[in-house]
Amino acid sequence: MGKTQVYEVKVQFGDCDPAGIVFFPNFLRWMDASSLNFFMACGLPPWRELTRTTGIVGTPLLEIHTKFLRSATYGETLHIHTSVEEWRDKVFLQQHLIRRGDDLLCEGRETRAFVIHPPGEPGRLKAIPVPADIRALCG
Amino acid sequence: MGKTQVYEVKVQFGDCDPAGIVFFPNFLRWMDASSLNFFMACGLPPWRELTRTTGIVGTPLLEIHTKFLRSATYGETLHIHTSVEEWRDKVFLQQHLIRRGDDLLCEGRETRAFVIHPPGEPGRLKAIPVPADIRALCG
Amino acid sequence: MGKTQVYEVKVQFGDCDPAGIVFFPNFLRWMDASSLNFFMACGLPPWRELTRTTGIVGTPLLEIHTKFLRSATYGETLHIHTSVEEWRDKVFLQQHLIRRGDDLLCEGRETRAFVIHPPGEPGRLKAIPVPADIRALCG
Amino acid sequence: MGKTQVYEVKVQFGDCDPAGIVFFPNFLRWMDASSLNFFMACGLPPWRELTRTTGIVGTPLLEIHTKFLRSATYGETLHIHTSVEEWRDKVFLQQHLIRRGDDLLCEGRETRAFVIHPPGEPGRLKAIPVPADIRALCG
Repeated sequence: MGKTQVYEVKVQFGDCDPAGIVFFPNFLRWMDASSLNFFMACGLPPWRELTRTTGIVGTPLLEIHTKFLRSATYGETLHIHTSVEEWRDKVFLQQHLIRRGDDLLCEGRETRAFVIHPPGEPGRLKAIPVPADIRALCG
Repeated sequence: MGKTQVYEVKVQFGDCDPAGIVFFPNFLRWMDASSLNFFMACGLPPWRELTRTTGIVGTPLLEIHTKFLRSATYGETLHIHTSVEEWRDKVFLQQHLIRRGDDLLCEGRETRAFVIHPPGEPGRLKAIPVPADIRALCG
Repeated sequence: MGKTQVYEVKVQFGDCDPAGIVFFPNFLRWMDASSLNFFMACGLPPWRELTRTTGIVGTPLLEIHTKFLRSATYGETLHIHTSVEEWRDKVFLQQHLIRRGDDLLCEGRETRAFVIHPPGEPGRLKAIPVPADIRALCG
Repeated sequence: MGKTQVYEVKVQFGDCDPAGIVFFPNFLRWMDASSLNFFMACGLPPWRELTRTTGIVGTPLLEIHTKFLRSATYGETLHIHTSVEEWRDKVFLQQHLIRRGDDLLCEGRETRAFVIHPPGEPGRLKAIPVPADIRALCG
């Protein structure tokens, strides 16, 4: 497995539900932020720049499998450990482990693809092979 | 005052905070939805179409003043009564009254403007005079 | 398989991201709303009442597996078809199919449990066997 | 005016709307986080502890007036400068200035109150005079 990047989250009052714990879709919101943070921390330029130079417009999510082991509440600081588990031809598997200190709270495994707009079709998205230079940076 | 359009919201568990009541930024999220719903209900085409025919890209919010009178919780159905209080040259004042039955929970007064991208400057937004035909439709 | 209940969602501008499509955690937020709506539509009382009579405080999510097949954007109306695929001793598998007309956009499979606070431990949650009367109502 | 505390926000992709800019209710979500952070940074204990020792359950928002001067987008870091402008008998006025570097993006003025549950009425909230020791800490 390649590099791991860590993204920090401070849980806010408004992230929690009437049971007093994090409303679970917020964990997925934070995983999405950590997915993008991973690429920036590995040295990729911001998407806006990447779009201009390579046509890549993003890494949309195709699938996510998430397990919830422990809850969290406001005032706590969490750390999301993000890495790429596997690079396939047209997709990659990204793993997020959300920890509070040594405790694992939540784990997510995503399947994502790099996509472009096909020439002349601004309304469509098409997966492209993972660029070799990006893969090398995140190695 | 002109037309009033009503937008319905069913409060969900995840809209509420650890105090068991609606987390207040959600009221503003719903007012934004009701602002757009107002124009659609008055007969304007979807923004995507309006952009193609008139260049108008939206009605960004310049200012909002909101009062919270009563709280709400999940399982409740709310109704947002939206109207335009005043049309000025380049801005308009939109009012939202959020009710649960006869009770007024929250009121918001917004200042918004119709904006376009100035020719040759796709990254900028510029307010334009309120188009007479839109004003007539919403009258 | 037992009953299917349908929950309607009107996609708002603010539910969408800079790519112009629904930001994916919102799909999970809507699945959570549909999960609760399923039980209410099958005839269970609101959780607040259920808590008083049975001690059950909710059905927290243990695991969710979600696939994204097509995107959605604002102005569209979606329908979430929710059912229980399987009742096990202490957990149940709930399925959500999010459709726009005949198109399947997204499917989610959740593992949830009915939980109570163990006597004298208000800060803890404990899974209980799925109550037979609830299972019968949702059958 | 008393102390100013600064709360940092890194704008995420999912905080932005189809116009590519922060969806405005998120600014209010961050102001709420900064309001609570202000009290913690001034030395108050977490609400959960404050509730046990004083009965105070929070500082609900009664009114907010917000102006939007400039937009923000993902990848940017913002700083919210929060202070109490005025202490009145039963309410206080809290000001939030959201800056990106030297630019002021958004300002919010809130009216909030310290509330307790009246004895024997767990379902109600009642404003109390601002406690002198809290006022001194935040001075």
